[in-house]
Amino acid sequence: MKTCIDCIPCFFRQALEAARLVSDDEAVAEHVLRSVAALVKDLDMDQSPPEMGQKIHRIVRERVGMDDPYRGIKQTFNEAALKLYPEMRRLIGASEEPLGTAVRLAIAGNIIDFGVNGGVQDGDLERSIRQCLAAHFADGQLAAFKRAVNEAEDILYLADNAGEIVFDRLLIELLPVERVTVAVKGRPIINDATMEDAIVAGLPQIVEVIDNGDDAPGTVAEACCQEFRRRFARADLVIAKGQGNFETLSEADKHIFFILRAKCPVIAMHLACPIGTSVLLEHKASERRLVN
Amino acid sequence: MKTCIDCIPCFFRQALEAARLVSDDEAVAEHVLRSVAALVKDLDMDQSPPEMGQKIHRIVRERVGMDDPYRGIKQTFNEAALKLYPEMRRLIGASEEPLGTAVRLAIAGNIIDFGVNGGVQDGDLERSIRQCLAAHFADGQLAAFKRAVNEAEDILYLADNAGEIVFDRLLIELLPVERVTVAVKGRPIINDATMEDAIVAGLPQIVEVIDNGDDAPGTVAEACCQEFRRRFARADLVIAKGQGNFETLSEADKHIFFILRAKCPVIAMHLACPIGTSVLLEHKASERRLVN
Repeated sequence: MKTCIDCIPCFFRQALEAARLVSDDEAVAEHVLRSVAALVKDLDMDQSPPEMGQKIHRIVRERVGMDDPYRGIKQTFNEAALKLYPEMRRLIGASEEPLGTAVRLAIAGNIIDFGVNGGVQDGDLERSIRQCLAAHFADGQLAAFKRAVNEAEDILYLADNAGEIVFDRLLIELLPVERVTVAVKGRPIINDATMEDAIVAGLPQIVEVIDNGDDAPGTVAEACCQEFRRRFARADLVIAKGQGNFETLSEADKHIFFILRAKCPVIAMHLACPIGTSVLLEHKASERRLVN
Repeated sequence: MKTCIDCIPCFFRQALEAARLVSDDEAVAEHVLRSVAALVKDLDMDQSPPEMGQKIHRIVRERVGMDDPYRGIKQTFNEAALKLYPEMRRLIGASEEPLGTAVRLAIAGNIIDFGVNGGVQDGDLERSIRQCLAAHFADGQLAAFKRAVNEAEDILYLADNAGEIVFDRLLIELLPVERVTVAVKGRPIINDATMEDAIVAGLPQIVEVIDNGDDAPGTVAEACCQEFRRRFARADLVIAKGQGNFETLSEADKHIFFILRAKCPVIAMHLACPIGTSVLLEHKASERRLVN
């Protein structure tokens, strides 16, 4: 997905929220906004929105002199999700359609996104779970997902955020784990999950976990490390969580299932759905450029 | 009022809305947003927000090659307000407190603001009237306003938007018109009222109307024409309608009553009121720098 005009005001809103979240100093926010303005003046609209997000958060981190300003937030949501994990696991066990329930819960966890909107409040997680459990997917998508999972020999699961990665674990447990690799971000970016969060979620005990070597809030394949690129190329099925992965991979020549909650108007427009929709969407390698 | 950090994302949102409102060409919107980014990079935060609005809309007008892109919108709202005028006049006539009702109606008309939010929908005007008629002003403000109007020898009424100027007429009719001068904008800016709108509202028949010679969506006194500056200096009471006039005159060394609906979070914070509040606020010459 390319950057669209509507993304520009949103970059500034996100930059302001990010600066305020990590620092009380208004001079930090002013510096960040002026720096973003300098970037937007000559912005390459062919790049995907997360590539700008990457630059914005590099500016924020550099200005406040912190490598991982969202570390506390990530810990908080990992803990909150781990508390909910046993009950969610029971829900899946009692479900008539466990894989569908696990996909819905993985989407519920996608509300923990500090890139799109500046915060998740108390009670939002539980509300998100209730909403997502009632979600209907587009015709045939869940059946197609089951079929693809059964047929694939090499599945790459692209995780999104900390906290959310505990929700992902519920879905990953239902996949053929011996054929699954989970990829997290290579360096801290917003509240995206890194290896530290995968470990807290207990993922390395059940599945191979790698990192992608990059700090884009999505998957910019060409910027990732060689090992990730090799694994991405080799995979015959990619499960991509969250908006950032959709924005960066919607034109990829790969067989992908996007699993996300549509949280911004531009994504909702691309997906032709209302904001807040739970999305499970197959993207076939041959469908390259279908979505742009 | 100086520009605050929160105004920056809003400048881009307003610029995008303005570009889209006057042109279907996305290249226009992109040009405008990049130009605004170039301005924001080196923005003087000591200037008031309407001074940036003035620059944004100059860019929009220049790029689309139109002197007055909001002309149609201004005509539409003048007509809509004129249709409501007889009924509103009856309301004031039947009111136990005609001046208070007229101030409330003048605030109801302040919803017709294409600078703050991109549109006013069908039914919004009637809804705004109902809401504003029930408005309570801060203690003593209405009594102070009555007293000031009775005592003043030279009242300058700064109009805000087209359409709204018909609502203003209802209030102006209750003032000592021989001592009142109404000022409109000197050149088209957003949907702000110019002399054309004052004439449509029938104001020159009841009161002297001048223009301020400028195209800021507020009153930047030093940028206005000499005649306006002379009249502004001479007035012993200024009645200033709308957010733009508050933003540009909140530090002025003049006796002013601000009459507005608080529509943006920054203004609401300055005024310590919720968004949507009907505001009648006295600002005394000696209170210079009280509000900033």
